[in-house]
Amino acid sequence: MDYAHILQRIHRDIAPLLTQGRVADYIPELGKVPATHFGMALVFADGRSHCVGDAAVPFSIQSISKLFACTLAFQLLGEDLWQRVGREPSGNAFNSLVQLEIDHGIPRNPFVNAGALVVTDTLCSHYAHPSLAILDFLREISGVGDVNFNSAVAESEAGHGHRNAAMAHFIKSFGNLSTDVDAVLQTYFQHCSIEMSCVELARASLFVANHGVVPHSGKAILTPLATRRLNAILLTCGTYNAAGDFAFKVGLPAKSGVGGGIVAIVPGQLAICVWSPTLDEYGNSVAGVAALEHFSALTAHSVFQ
Amino acid sequence: MDYAHILQRIHRDIAPLLTQGRVADYIPELGKVPATHFGMALVFADGRSHCVGDAAVPFSIQSISKLFACTLAFQLLGEDLWQRVGREPSGNAFNSLVQLEIDHGIPRNPFVNAGALVVTDTLCSHYAHPSLAILDFLREISGVGDVNFNSAVAESEAGHGHRNAAMAHFIKSFGNLSTDVDAVLQTYFQHCSIEMSCVELARASLFVANHGVVPHSGKAILTPLATRRLNAILLTCGTYNAAGDFAFKVGLPAKSGVGGGIVAIVPGQLAICVWSPTLDEYGNSVAGVAALEHFSALTAHSVFQ
Amino acid sequence: MDYAHILQRIHRDIAPLLTQGRVADYIPELGKVPATHFGMALVFADGRSHCVGDAAVPFSIQSISKLFACTLAFQLLGEDLWQRVGREPSGNAFNSLVQLEIDHGIPRNPFVNAGALVVTDTLCSHYAHPSLAILDFLREISGVGDVNFNSAVAESEAGHGHRNAAMAHFIKSFGNLSTDVDAVLQTYFQHCSIEMSCVELARASLFVANHGVVPHSGKAILTPLATRRLNAILLTCGTYNAAGDFAFKVGLPAKSGVGGGIVAIVPGQLAICVWSPTLDEYGNSVAGVAALEHFSALTAHSVFQ
Amino acid sequence: MDYAHILQRIHRDIAPLLTQGRVADYIPELGKVPATHFGMALVFADGRSHCVGDAAVPFSIQSISKLFACTLAFQLLGEDLWQRVGREPSGNAFNSLVQLEIDHGIPRNPFVNAGALVVTDTLCSHYAHPSLAILDFLREISGVGDVNFNSAVAESEAGHGHRNAAMAHFIKSFGNLSTDVDAVLQTYFQHCSIEMSCVELARASLFVANHGVVPHSGKAILTPLATRRLNAILLTCGTYNAAGDFAFKVGLPAKSGVGGGIVAIVPGQLAICVWSPTLDEYGNSVAGVAALEHFSALTAHSVFQ
Repeated sequence: MDYAHILQRIHRDIAPLLTQGRVADYIPELGKVPATHFGMALVFADGRSHCVGDAAVPFSIQSISKLFACTLAFQLLGEDLWQRVGREPSGNAFNSLVQLEIDHGIPRNPFVNAGALVVTDTLCSHYAHPSLAILDFLREISGVGDVNFNSAVAESEAGHGHRNAAMAHFIKSFGNLSTDVDAVLQTYFQHCSIEMSCVELARASLFVANHGVVPHSGKAILTPLATRRLNAILLTCGTYNAAGDFAFKVGLPAKSGVGGGIVAIVPGQLAICVWSPTLDEYGNSVAGVAALEHFSALTAHSVFQ
Repeated sequence: MDYAHILQRIHRDIAPLLTQGRVADYIPELGKVPATHFGMALVFADGRSHCVGDAAVPFSIQSISKLFACTLAFQLLGEDLWQRVGREPSGNAFNSLVQLEIDHGIPRNPFVNAGALVVTDTLCSHYAHPSLAILDFLREISGVGDVNFNSAVAESEAGHGHRNAAMAHFIKSFGNLSTDVDAVLQTYFQHCSIEMSCVELARASLFVANHGVVPHSGKAILTPLATRRLNAILLTCGTYNAAGDFAFKVGLPAKSGVGGGIVAIVPGQLAICVWSPTLDEYGNSVAGVAALEHFSALTAHSVFQ
Repeated sequence: MDYAHILQRIHRDIAPLLTQGRVADYIPELGKVPATHFGMALVFADGRSHCVGDAAVPFSIQSISKLFACTLAFQLLGEDLWQRVGREPSGNAFNSLVQLEIDHGIPRNPFVNAGALVVTDTLCSHYAHPSLAILDFLREISGVGDVNFNSAVAESEAGHGHRNAAMAHFIKSFGNLSTDVDAVLQTYFQHCSIEMSCVELARASLFVANHGVVPHSGKAILTPLATRRLNAILLTCGTYNAAGDFAFKVGLPAKSGVGGGIVAIVPGQLAICVWSPTLDEYGNSVAGVAALEHFSALTAHSVFQ
Repeated sequence: MDYAHILQRIHRDIAPLLTQGRVADYIPELGKVPATHFGMALVFADGRSHCVGDAAVPFSIQSISKLFACTLAFQLLGEDLWQRVGREPSGNAFNSLVQLEIDHGIPRNPFVNAGALVVTDTLCSHYAHPSLAILDFLREISGVGDVNFNSAVAESEAGHGHRNAAMAHFIKSFGNLSTDVDAVLQTYFQHCSIEMSCVELARASLFVANHGVVPHSGKAILTPLATRRLNAILLTCGTYNAAGDFAFKVGLPAKSGVGGGIVAIVPGQLAICVWSPTLDEYGNSVAGVAALEHFSALTAHSVFQ
């Protein structure tokens, strides 16, 4: 299959969408990113890669960091992790507190904000410097040495993060947060502020497409079974309250972020990262979702065949 | 792979589970089924099949009929179907009315009861005898001539079906039911009362594993794209409010019923049906889920690799 | 106090409000009533009465019938009534099913639709002809011989009453409806369709202001304690999801209906009925609420002093 | 009426209830109070007073402080207060976040925790030392010079106050908190920790029964209209999610606290305070509610006649 040509065709076809949707502005720093960026990168387990547009431009990975934080916590705790966070789609907006109240402080899954706070808490319990541990992990699996936080974004989010603070205190009130609320929030805002490009993110995610093994180093991050399970959670919970629709249209495990990035996985074959800053009502990149739907249709890559 | 041996091993290993859970008794007729039945059938696209236990014993397919009703409606309406029913996991019990109120009468997906009532309504709009149309469809795709309703079960459910009646009237109050409420309910209870064995159900479901084509007749029921999409909905919504957990453990598109049956799909390869009457708190067969988890672990069949 | 003058002043002052709000049109027959009607009647326990505007024009009492149905049921069952229906404000719209699901089929109070259906069910259990029993009761307490149903309104509501049907079936599914769903609904729609004028309704309600005794006949309908309790429920639950606001502004026990009528009680002294067909977002008459607020301010009649 | 005798009779009759219910222990300091305390005080506008039992023993007023904080805010902001907090019963537990999410950060009323936090925020905006302002206000209206905080209780609650912190951050995220979250919480915990006896609390509340005027000083705290309105909110919202039931049984405006105290108002006549530490499932004192129901039955004091 001529992936270079397919990427060019997608780039051309999604152009009209780049002015649809809105750049996330609840974090003021994010609102400064120009709306018309678009980049897409494919990285195969065998080393090949293809990219198009702004695929080398770093952007704020935001909730995509939940994928990596969850992987670290799953490594550390194994199946015990699921005592503290569920594996079910939420049926509610990513920042809703309703379900948390109904479920007595057990978040529905690790990819809603509440779940990511619990995941972050497990890392705060384990590491002396949890933010650096995530950064080191990302550098290791991506093979990129200078992955970094954007302190301005982290501070901007902290300054407007009252809903996340509400969630953290709420979870703590149910006894499902072990460490200090402020420390968990600071770590959470930091790992959300990490900046990476499409190429770097696709590379970092490749172990999820490769049975848990980082191709360039041969290191096993997760067992094959755990990797399948991580993919299952990505498919059912990775794109907020639109996961069903995304599975219907794209058919691939994925994690999106309000920075406009989406990582998608073709199990056994490749990792994809697409980026475009304007978001739909669910918080997913408008052009990003369309690009992946197009990709799936053109290549027939889908877990459902 | 020695599937016959694998089925025997599963049969042996799940034996202790046959006394766990409870037979559904909100429909009195269903409560009469002995708890200790267990059957499992594998049917491959290439014609091979394997089975174990009570795989030839007919049972009440209940909500598994939603898969076939939805297929018929998807055939008839194409993508227009999704104007009237969503494609998102519900985050609530299968018979909850809360989400229906929030979403103004648009059910979250075709596999919760509310969604199946809307699907049934589309069939009632189209067919003079919608129940017979479903029966004919099942006979055609299974190649089994004597698939039938169980009138005692349909009447038993109608007599205790006030929650479904509540839903149908509620949906009607939002304008999302075109035909008569009583006719929709009667048709719904009838297609839920259909009785088939594991072997017959796996055979009837094989087109979902075969890109939309019935292998024994070569007839295309759905396009390959529509078939992938149907599999996506099965994976995210097919096992009630435990779909995330099921995807995590089993990793296959599936539809369960309170009669204790579960149909699962290995896209491109085979259809599986397992049956055991006792249910967990979510309404899924205890031994059935365990058998499929075991099957997935032993065979590595999963959409996530 | 010069009540005649006060009524004239209220009539003049509320004139600009008669074009605000909307006539209820979910029951098509109700939508035909001209918007600009306004009537108000005061009837004192000692026999005096005053009225203004269209106070002698019959209108559809709608939910005000819940006051009389509840009185009859309270007479019949005494405190046992509260096993089947609560006495708490709902915190939700009058026709919401959410709370009913949370509370397992026990309606929050007898003045939301769900509660009135349970109340109606108790009357259906007790009387061979429950609708006629309510009619007879109203004729007796009002002293008006020709109080009647409006069959066109009852049929109009039945034809558009799917939400009430949904509630009745839902309550039945929880086991909190003894008699036939259709019979309960028919009786409910009939007593809602009763037509009375402000003067007649104020007269019929006078026992609630008179320690439970009908002044013109001397007959005790409820004990003084039960009458105080009925007034308490009217104050906390009588004006749908605006009961707190109504208590704040008006300070009197009251029951409103979507026909635009409101009955209010000054315990120990008088009954008031005001009518104007256009409704606010909560289903209460815009001019009716304003007239009662004005009345309370001008006369200092309030239970809170 | 022989109020002294009535109080003795109540004291005797409620004795069996003193071992029912549970002392609040989510604030560890509160859990140390012996369960068997009981005190009751009546203070009349004309200066008479009666009391029984432990009516002179100071206890933690907890949520009863919401009555005084709300009065201060109502004084300061007048009707503008209701732009930021509603006047409707909540239909949910006192510490629920669900309704706050539905209503976009506007608490249902000033007597649920969320509403009291907004009220406290208005005081924090206005006063350099808001806690002292509340203390001064209580000293002034009670005529008691040494009303004080209990720092151990305030710190105990702060240390276990994650749910209140969650609410405050949640409200802040909707823009309905002007001042610093931590300052609001600290002030809130402090005014909840105030200790007063039944006699002192009844005296402090007497202006609510006296058209807004403090009898001993003649100072007008609120206008007569504002006082009626405050009584309305007390009746519909003052006893958590049991306000309807309390109005039904007792028929008086009231505010309860988890310290076991309840203040009740007979408008135009007297203020009552009852105290007993063990609570029912709604957070109201078991013996306190029973004593007030008994009092209302014996004296026929009720706003509903």
